[in-house]
Amino acid sequence: MTTPDPGTLSLAFIGLGAMGGPMSARLVQSGFTVTGYDINDAAMAALRQVGGQTATTPAEAASKASVLIIIVASAQQVDDVLFGPNGALTILSAGSAIMVCSTVPPSYMQALGQRLHDRGFPLLDAPVSGGVSGATDGTLTMMAAGSAAAFEACEPIMPVLASKIYPLGDAPGQGTTVKVLNQLLTGVHLATTMEAVALALRLGVDLERAYEVISNSAGASRVFTNRVPELLSGAETPGGALDIFVKDLGIVLDVGKEAHFPLPISASAHQLFLMGSAAGLGQEPSNSLLKVFEKIAGIRMPTRSSSSTPDPDAS
Amino acid sequence: MTTPDPGTLSLAFIGLGAMGGPMSARLVQSGFTVTGYDINDAAMAALRQVGGQTATTPAEAASKASVLIIIVASAQQVDDVLFGPNGALTILSAGSAIMVCSTVPPSYMQALGQRLHDRGFPLLDAPVSGGVSGATDGTLTMMAAGSAAAFEACEPIMPVLASKIYPLGDAPGQGTTVKVLNQLLTGVHLATTMEAVALALRLGVDLERAYEVISNSAGASRVFTNRVPELLSGAETPGGALDIFVKDLGIVLDVGKEAHFPLPISASAHQLFLMGSAAGLGQEPSNSLLKVFEKIAGIRMPTRSSSSTPDPDAS
Repeated sequence: MTTPDPGTLSLAFIGLGAMGGPMSARLVQSGFTVTGYDINDAAMAALRQVGGQTATTPAEAASKASVLIIIVASAQQVDDVLFGPNGALTILSAGSAIMVCSTVPPSYMQALGQRLHDRGFPLLDAPVSGGVSGATDGTLTMMAAGSAAAFEACEPIMPVLASKIYPLGDAPGQGTTVKVLNQLLTGVHLATTMEAVALALRLGVDLERAYEVISNSAGASRVFTNRVPELLSGAETPGGALDIFVKDLGIVLDVGKEAHFPLPISASAHQLFLMGSAAGLGQEPSNSLLKVFEKIAGIRMPTRSSSSTPDPDAS
Repeated sequence: MTTPDPGTLSLAFIGLGAMGGPMSARLVQSGFTVTGYDINDAAMAALRQVGGQTATTPAEAASKASVLIIIVASAQQVDDVLFGPNGALTILSAGSAIMVCSTVPPSYMQALGQRLHDRGFPLLDAPVSGGVSGATDGTLTMMAAGSAAAFEACEPIMPVLASKIYPLGDAPGQGTTVKVLNQLLTGVHLATTMEAVALALRLGVDLERAYEVISNSAGASRVFTNRVPELLSGAETPGGALDIFVKDLGIVLDVGKEAHFPLPISASAHQLFLMGSAAGLGQEPSNSLLKVFEKIAGIRMPTRSSSSTPDPDAS
């Protein structure tokens, strides 16, 4: 693997939210010249505080970039960032690589690869898993697909962000497809963890003890093992917003629909997240899904503070 | 911990199925005198082959036992084994302990504790997790609740069966309640794993590669990590029958109903297992749940053999 001096690579980073914020900060701290953009001014101030630069439009951020990294909340936002009136493609130098870490529909990512290829930009389809803590520690898992040129351009960047990098093919969309499968499982596991915790509270079970047992039993999952201690601690742990799962499970169901394929468990979990969104919890951390059961059934996490702080915009 | 000579303890073991078979064999191999009973003659022959004794009724099995162990498929079967015409209680010596490892409704287990207490028998509520491999290796997780007398009587037995033993209180039902929470998670995770694997097959994803990625991502679960390699190997791995999850998720939903508590994700997973049962897969290993999607959508595990052997009766 070639390891060019990070100082020689100028990066544009669009989307400084729950994930993009710590990811862009890591790149700054690793010596890259990073110019960031976000619709949220506070997110841009945070990047400046760690030594990054910021711009007033995606185009301005991209003006000197050899690699453009995008992690925004939706395919529509990716499209605006690239093709909009102040979009990056109005100015990005031909041949610069574009790395999209957002979770978007695989069919969108596949088409995007073709659109960008036609204009001379290599696209790395590079969704990530590992949450805010993985973004902060640089221990994300990255599911990457794209041409050799796209991989080569992003090679110095990826290990700063991710400790596990899986090349999944040369066609954009192949990384995102595996990410969609991962989000199917993650979203359902999160909904199920909250359902089980809520039932435990309703039955008066000692949750700390039940957690210890189930973590060592067949019912354990990565989500259960990570989230229940967060709930038990009573802290409002930062993390992706609940609405991220409304979106991601929505993509899962769209993929199923396009393929004429039934996904009954995913559909139920999506409905539970929609209940959370309908209850006004969409911008709260996704652990707030438990509050759907609290609102319905009069249960309450013993450690839950009475108020909660909305999550910073995750776009 | 007292460690009496196993040879001095005479055990009755009722239910020699997928779990009880290997568990009773371990007790024989550890030096206990074990007299087993099962409705299935082949299961009894297997116990004799490893050096155990067998009986023609639960009563006969219990005649010399100081501890009676029961792991059958339902509360009704537990009731028959104990209180039926040839039931163990017609002959079991007063003061002998009874250890029930079956997954039954917590309310049944709680009432059973009282009924047995009234007749002078200490009950250990002792459901287990860890599947057939855990039963074979003695690495089960045991969730135990009961009086000091019940724990004391079962003390020499438990470490032979389980590597993790969690005392969860002095009232029968407290162990089973945590087991129910574990089965909620395990059942949903199994249904979700099959849904994700089926979608991956439909989309033409390299399943081996996706498994590697997701095992290192937020979507990982104990069930996903254990079951997908079994599916990939193409072997019909022995394991609990699909109908066990129809029963266990049914108990989960009954617990919710008794508590007037909604469990939408568990209900969806239960429906998927019922589809499996309706498709005639109830006595096949629970991995056969994938065949529901195969039957519906014309997908097929590349490694799946065209025929499959039904699982031995798990009662």
